[in-house]
Amino acid sequence: MNNTLTPPSRTIADLKAAIRNEARRVTSYDVATAAGVSQSAVSRCFKPGASVSKATFARVMQAAQDLDYTPNAAARSLITRRSNLVAVVISNQVTLHYPEVLSELSRQFGMRGMRILLFSLANEADVDQTLTEVWQHQVDGVVVAARLSPVQLAEFERRQIPFVLFNRSAREHNVNAIVCDQQEAARLMVSRLAAAGHKRFAMIDGPAGSSIAHERRRGVAERLAEIGLDAPLMVSGAFDYASGLHGMREIVVRLGYVPDAIICGNDVMAIGCLDTARHEMKLNVPEQLSITGFDGIAPAGWLSYNLTTLRQPMQHMTTAVAEMLTALIRDGSRGAERKLFPATVVDGATARLGPAG
Amino acid sequence: MNNTLTPPSRTIADLKAAIRNEARRVTSYDVATAAGVSQSAVSRCFKPGASVSKATFARVMQAAQDLDYTPNAAARSLITRRSNLVAVVISNQVTLHYPEVLSELSRQFGMRGMRILLFSLANEADVDQTLTEVWQHQVDGVVVAARLSPVQLAEFERRQIPFVLFNRSAREHNVNAIVCDQQEAARLMVSRLAAAGHKRFAMIDGPAGSSIAHERRRGVAERLAEIGLDAPLMVSGAFDYASGLHGMREIVVRLGYVPDAIICGNDVMAIGCLDTARHEMKLNVPEQLSITGFDGIAPAGWLSYNLTTLRQPMQHMTTAVAEMLTALIRDGSRGAERKLFPATVVDGATARLGPAG
Repeated sequence: MNNTLTPPSRTIADLKAAIRNEARRVTSYDVATAAGVSQSAVSRCFKPGASVSKATFARVMQAAQDLDYTPNAAARSLITRRSNLVAVVISNQVTLHYPEVLSELSRQFGMRGMRILLFSLANEADVDQTLTEVWQHQVDGVVVAARLSPVQLAEFERRQIPFVLFNRSAREHNVNAIVCDQQEAARLMVSRLAAAGHKRFAMIDGPAGSSIAHERRRGVAERLAEIGLDAPLMVSGAFDYASGLHGMREIVVRLGYVPDAIICGNDVMAIGCLDTARHEMKLNVPEQLSITGFDGIAPAGWLSYNLTTLRQPMQHMTTAVAEMLTALIRDGSRGAERKLFPATVVDGATARLGPAG
Repeated sequence: MNNTLTPPSRTIADLKAAIRNEARRVTSYDVATAAGVSQSAVSRCFKPGASVSKATFARVMQAAQDLDYTPNAAARSLITRRSNLVAVVISNQVTLHYPEVLSELSRQFGMRGMRILLFSLANEADVDQTLTEVWQHQVDGVVVAARLSPVQLAEFERRQIPFVLFNRSAREHNVNAIVCDQQEAARLMVSRLAAAGHKRFAMIDGPAGSSIAHERRRGVAERLAEIGLDAPLMVSGAFDYASGLHGMREIVVRLGYVPDAIICGNDVMAIGCLDTARHEMKLNVPEQLSITGFDGIAPAGWLSYNLTTLRQPMQHMTTAVAEMLTALIRDGSRGAERKLFPATVVDGATARLGPAG
């Protein structure tokens, strides 16, 4: 086993005993000692793209294997100032009802050699406490799928931590963001419903703290006003199935009749609304009532639903957020960029739609 | 602004300029210099529960604020050997079709001051490459929701990294695991279907690499054999909706008739199977055909489905995995523990069930 590239096994055994006695991890210095090279040579061997001779590389790899050394990401991050960790701050409402988002983010960052440190929020209002914790981890960047206050935005700038808002906007502030145009999507759906003759609208709205819900609601209200129709009855929901069930009942009770169309703030609520309309109220959808959603999640396409909805181009959006954040980390900021993606209408089986524009 | 607890602002300004010139982060040593205390005093101030005088604490906090210092988790982890990071290795199939798992794990570890570093696998067979990456991060422990080979299990032991298998078993090996008893659950469902007179069974199975699929399949086959019924026709699926659709068609084509009951390897496939049976084949479920799932995911409870299924006690299981891993990290191992949780039958609207045992 002893050849010219391997130090005498006595040295290795001694080193191992010493490390065990000190109850510590094997360091790059130990590997350097065992290999008879400098610590910086060991460091170069574990750095992609760094220059090192073949002989040195072989000695170092043998010593690393003998000592059972794995380069330590935490130690390396202190030197390179790169941890290859990206914090993702996201609400449970998104993760539970639109799991593709997290899977795609993980895949996209993974392809770029980065890992996701997950900060999930019970609701978006918890973001303040979560950020305090984010600051303690040496992440290279942050994806924020939650609404940030101006103070929170300023804190990111002050700390010079690269970040991208994901599907949240801060129009008034100059920040990097990847967003689907919720307002335009909402306007489009109203136009196509109105073109098919729907006049009396109701809406099951998302939760108060959600900026996505806010924009969808605003788009619906503005477009209805523009085309001279009455303001919709608004009932509030929490983006979950039960909100759709209760919302449907509340609408009928409060109006005293079934409206022409109910626009729901997301697909999961639309599914709850649809199930109540069909199974509890025995309504024909879409003959008696049109119901629409937002998002384009997988269950919306299941045969029992075939929901008429607005699909966000989630794969393009997650690719864009990974690309944008990676570039920010690598090259620094060159002024804020806001990439806007349009949603597309999925002409399903739950609403009568007229022609576009 | 100058009081006895604040060093002259000249010192702070000088220090800041020096740090800026060296283009480096503020360290605890800088804070110590500014506060006129030792580095270890600064360190104690940021360590929960450590002893430090009020006056020192105030000086250090003021200096930290002046210098804009945040204790660095990476640096601290080199000293304390605790990163408060837990790696979660989980397949996309779980995350996409059972998002509650990841949300609950994140919540449970968050309550214990730990964060999740997410390693999602396109399929469970990719676990080898992923583990190589896990070793590079100084995580305190690992939750593995994927099947590990004996070699991979040995590697965990060798590196002395605390880990818990989540809903995966390694019966032959002595490892810590939190599992739902898939096999017993499968046996229970077969018994209750048989008690209602079902004789001809088929099964839409999960993917080959999944140990959960394996155990569910085994439970079904064993119990049918025990009670003297024919082995079920097995068709393979990938745990997704499309597999349920295609599986239903394949079963009817291959058998030439509609069986009495189809047991699906998870809820999402059962939903696909059910939609095909009802909407495409116009079958009455459960009058002509019983269909059952596994998992107890949210959509299984939606009114359009009301699926007969087996519910895993996910909240108890995620609590248990967080408790077990936290104890292992804190106290070390005291021999392997395997906690087994029973699934409960959800007597929904898609199968005719007889009495238990």
